[in-house]
Amino acid sequence: MRITVLTLFPEYFDSFKLSPVVRRAVEKGICELDIVDIRTFAPGSFRHLDDSPFGGGPGMVMRCQPVLDALASLKSENTHTVLLSPKGGVFSQKKAHELANRQDILLICGHYEGVDARVENHVDEQLSIGDYVLTGGEVAATVVIDSVVRLLRGALRDTATTEESHENGLLEYPQYTQPADFRGEKVPPVLLSGNDKAIRDWRLTQSLLLTRQNRPDLFEKYPLSEYEKQLLKKADAEKVED
Amino acid sequence: MRITVLTLFPEYFDSFKLSPVVRRAVEKGICELDIVDIRTFAPGSFRHLDDSPFGGGPGMVMRCQPVLDALASLKSENTHTVLLSPKGGVFSQKKAHELANRQDILLICGHYEGVDARVENHVDEQLSIGDYVLTGGEVAATVVIDSVVRLLRGALRDTATTEESHENGLLEYPQYTQPADFRGEKVPPVLLSGNDKAIRDWRLTQSLLLTRQNRPDLFEKYPLSEYEKQLLKKADAEKVED
Repeated sequence: MRITVLTLFPEYFDSFKLSPVVRRAVEKGICELDIVDIRTFAPGSFRHLDDSPFGGGPGMVMRCQPVLDALASLKSENTHTVLLSPKGGVFSQKKAHELANRQDILLICGHYEGVDARVENHVDEQLSIGDYVLTGGEVAATVVIDSVVRLLRGALRDTATTEESHENGLLEYPQYTQPADFRGEKVPPVLLSGNDKAIRDWRLTQSLLLTRQNRPDLFEKYPLSEYEKQLLKKADAEKVED
Repeated sequence: MRITVLTLFPEYFDSFKLSPVVRRAVEKGICELDIVDIRTFAPGSFRHLDDSPFGGGPGMVMRCQPVLDALASLKSENTHTVLLSPKGGVFSQKKAHELANRQDILLICGHYEGVDARVENHVDEQLSIGDYVLTGGEVAATVVIDSVVRLLRGALRDTATTEESHENGLLEYPQYTQPADFRGEKVPPVLLSGNDKAIRDWRLTQSLLLTRQNRPDLFEKYPLSEYEKQLLKKADAEKVED
């Protein structure tokens, strides 16, 4: 897979490229990561990249010319182009899988709050990583790339990602490791029982309870099986007894 | 404001610290950013940081001891502690403002999918930046810090952030800058009219239309004023005429 990033701050990605999963994916040839400076496409010695908005108002707006010329120069027929923008559709694990299945994606990082709107006519989609305001698309790009690259086959040492939060619509169950007793805080006994069925049931129950409590919006969308309904009913009954 | 980050990858923040807004805030003394290596709190030559999960399953779980010892050592009475986790509440612009009003926050970046759950008992809150899976909390921490720091007084050159997406519950209107005609793509004439009232109305209308189209979930929550209802009605009528 090839990932190209168009940015005003190429140096922002220096550390990111060295993060374990990205570096391994690049070294193993699973993914190619090209960081391209938009300035390369701003002609003249002044390298005019932004200007005041038409109609007035605070801030500077990124001009469309350098971005559109960069797009024209870098993209091929199969390139999927994404503008990172707070106005876009919300990035999700489903979207991460969708992007991970593509061969060639190009991410445009602009001033997060002002890219000339004519750029929007030339991209395949706009994505927002969440309902908050960032300085630039660079931070958003690292989020998208990190979540996509780790889904590529061979990128993670341990490929079992199916039980993670957001993979099946539920939050993940609590995890514990050594020691079993840390200064009086103990691991739930069932996890030490060696009873696989009991462990599976406990984990599923915890996932359901946690999602219901922390993310009622996700829980509402989750299609509960009959078995899961029973597990929840049992957990609720036990709670009342406490 | 003081921001402390607990991480296994302190070098991940090297580039981030040089990003324009963060660097300016630190140089101007608006914000202090301390990146602390969790390894400092893992005793012994082996520096045992993670281990297999109790109950079995893939992946490694971050041990609670180094994290809890780091917390105990670094936090003061006023420190607000946040564990970045996909299980947490969803980070939002409202939460960014809330954190920006604090004097001292400490962010814990763990393996994104496995920190010993006993850590959760010792933090003030868990935050998730979105419904997707990341490799580690580091990327999430940069999102939180970027969005918080830019809200601190004096961090941005241009302090008018109130018209941005997600500040008032609507997506921002389209922005345009020079040239007025780019290879045949023209700026909406109203923005060149000099008529402030018409520009304000156009922008508000565009914000409303864009939010209704791209983010019906936000639009549904937005309390429309009578005037906004009129603007929308007018825009919808004009669309039908087209």
